Amino acid sequence: MYPEHSPQPDPALRHRRGAARLTVLRDGEPLADADLTVEQTGHDFGFGCIGFDFVPLHGGELDPDGDEAARLTALAEQWLDVFNWSTLPFYWAQFEPERGRPRTEQLRRTAEWFRSRGVTLKGHPLVWHTLTAPWLLDLATDEIERLQRERIRRDVGDFRGLIGMWDAINEVVIMPVFTAEANGITRLARRLGRVGTIRLAFEEARASNPSATLLLNDFDMSSAYDTLIEAVLEAGIQVDAIGLQSHMHQGWWGEEKTLRVLDKFSRYGLPLHFTEMTLVSGDLMPAHVVDLNDHVVDTWPSTPDGEARQAEELEAHLRLLWQHPSVASATYWGISDVGAWLGAPAGLIRADGTPKPAYDALRRLVKGEWWTAPTTLRTDAAGRVEVEGWRGTHRLTAGGASASFSLTAPTADLILSLD
Amino acid sequence: MYPEHSPQPDPALRHRRGAARLTVLRDGEPLADADLTVEQTGHDFGFGCIGFDFVPLHGGELDPDGDEAARLTALAEQWLDVFNWSTLPFYWAQFEPERGRPRTEQLRRTAEWFRSRGVTLKGHPLVWHTLTAPWLLDLATDEIERLQRERIRRDVGDFRGLIGMWDAINEVVIMPVFTAEANGITRLARRLGRVGTIRLAFEEARASNPSATLLLNDFDMSSAYDTLIEAVLEAGIQVDAIGLQSHMHQGWWGEEKTLRVLDKFSRYGLPLHFTEMTLVSGDLMPAHVVDLNDHVVDTWPSTPDGEARQAEELEAHLRLLWQHPSVASATYWGISDVGAWLGAPAGLIRADGTPKPAYDALRRLVKGEWWTAPTTLRTDAAGRVEVEGWRGTHRLTAGGASASFSLTAPTADLILSLD
Repeated sequence: MYPEHSPQPDPALRHRRGAARLTVLRDGEPLADADLTVEQTGHDFGFGCIGFDFVPLHGGELDPDGDEAARLTALAEQWLDVFNWSTLPFYWAQFEPERGRPRTEQLRRTAEWFRSRGVTLKGHPLVWHTLTAPWLLDLATDEIERLQRERIRRDVGDFRGLIGMWDAINEVVIMPVFTAEANGITRLARRLGRVGTIRLAFEEARASNPSATLLLNDFDMSSAYDTLIEAVLEAGIQVDAIGLQSHMHQGWWGEEKTLRVLDKFSRYGLPLHFTEMTLVSGDLMPAHVVDLNDHVVDTWPSTPDGEARQAEELEAHLRLLWQHPSVASATYWGISDVGAWLGAPAGLIRADGTPKPAYDALRRLVKGEWWTAPTTLRTDAAGRVEVEGWRGTHRLTAGGASASFSLTAPTADLILSLD
Repeated sequence: MYPEHSPQPDPALRHRRGAARLTVLRDGEPLADADLTVEQTGHDFGFGCIGFDFVPLHGGELDPDGDEAARLTALAEQWLDVFNWSTLPFYWAQFEPERGRPRTEQLRRTAEWFRSRGVTLKGHPLVWHTLTAPWLLDLATDEIERLQRERIRRDVGDFRGLIGMWDAINEVVIMPVFTAEANGITRLARRLGRVGTIRLAFEEARASNPSATLLLNDFDMSSAYDTLIEAVLEAGIQVDAIGLQSHMHQGWWGEEKTLRVLDKFSRYGLPLHFTEMTLVSGDLMPAHVVDLNDHVVDTWPSTPDGEARQAEELEAHLRLLWQHPSVASATYWGISDVGAWLGAPAGLIRADGTPKPAYDALRRLVKGEWWTAPTTLRTDAAGRVEVEGWRGTHRLTAGGASASFSLTAPTADLILSLD
């Protein structure tokens, strides 16, 4: 049974706001009639970006004193200033180019670097037909299945405690009918069917980390994807969130399509993750291109007009997602023009390291309009004070001591001990 | 588990041919060294056409001596000369416009007329959001479900023995996201989900006629439909054949698309029915039209060029279907330009009752190239004779006596008693 209607956008943003009645204690006694400061320290919402750029930096592949390391170190500061979620690359072709020699250590160091800075991590993807291990192609389908299962179990297990979210499987709608490139996973998906392949991915990932957040992720926004979601739910497979790619190299979806996608995919009562958002700051890719990979250009420059449009559209898009109660995260793909997918000027930071208007627009939302700046409040005679703000972590400071709390609900009663 | 590969077309047409070693008996003794004639009397393959035109004729709604009855009587002869399968209309809106007063009798008389002429019947459709009963709209969703279940059970039961095939449910891919017209079935499909709604249709139809051939039918040839088919098979719902609409008002699919569709949908090992074929003999509908119903024109004439194209394309299309071992039937939509859907010149017979070239082309295939003309053979001393031909029913005649047999397999041993 599904609800007949979808959750609706709320311009009043009630789903993003929280409030708490705090009772502040110091040395076990109510802190009566005292001034204190409350400031936001983090967002509940996942403002995400891929962290692929930083694997070479932390994976020990760069001269730590070289130019590239310096560029990435500066980029990391810009990254951390706006983002709190990161997607890390687990493409099988790159993660285990030689069978039996996975790049676990490089990824682990990168993951630890992000985690120690409070960033929530998602691994991408555990099963995909593109960029899968090329050495699968020579194997029998049964053997591909066995290795795919082992791979999921190994990697989800190895990163337990560091990575708690996974794109368990990527682009299943096209998986069994994908023809652009011979690969072992399409063969497996033809054998098992879409639902069978998804079951395999979720079974193994769940077995390896029962508390993981596991996603289906797809670029197909047609009825094929919601038909697939229904098939998966009908089959009793627990999906924790629905991943919606949104590479918009051919132009912003616009409000009508964005609202339609939100309405369509929110009906299942699952959190929506916008997993792969791209908006270019140069010429748009022609509309007739179907597989974005088919668009190959020598250079694809960022332009002033393109940058203005990118900023405007990114802001408009994020406002729509922010207003919809089902959206839990929005991940940009990715921060820099350097090494961007398809050579597109898709970054928020130019190749020279300077921020584009889109970066500034994003920062204004994430750390401005949707962020509670330090506020001075006063407790009453019983040490109580009411706090209201955006959902996320906050710090309360009084007389040099502080305590943290989260606003996660319309209202809550909390007791805070300063230390 | 699905096969990784689809059945392939066979230009040698082995799947359409049959052979038998007959032993012919007369009065219990082998008919030795005798001349006999073998002729084909029917096709295994379903050469179908809608029979909607004839409901008024047999439903008692026409003056039997009037012009319209005369037109339909002539049309019926043309119909019966090429077709052996018919689809009859069970659109809820028309079948039961007033709740509780279904047009069972009119349909029964029409069905009996077809059956007595050896025509195999299919009812269309048991569940559909378009042309559903308008009086559902005012009811609660639970009540819609109850009435939809009752309706299926009643009609499949009432026509048991006459109609053994049903489009159990029509256009499920779009059903829960259909917005062109408010209706009760879309509401039901949102509540139950696509798989749940299909389960309802198949459950009730199966309960009412356990030996019925039950189909899913859709116009959506994208991955949404094969995703849905996988979902249904995964859910353990027994689908007996896959219905593929192919209204080609915007032009013939062409060989490439036709082969791709055949390859995609044949992989599940189920018979394919081309349930709703249309090719116009006039201007093509513009390619930009998405919902064919949106194309409204004052007149849409049949033209000489259009008629030549229609004949050529119908023949090319049928040859492709005929070569593919998974295709069990091909139903044209429908025979006459009079009353054709959308006012299109889609008929094989002009409004004035004369056959278009497409009718002649179809007849040449069905009763010519793919038909075994009467052939003289001679039995051996043991009364044996080898027969080879197209799969279907045949009659053997010798000395004024005859017997019927079917060619259904590459080879068979049969004993025939003449009477």
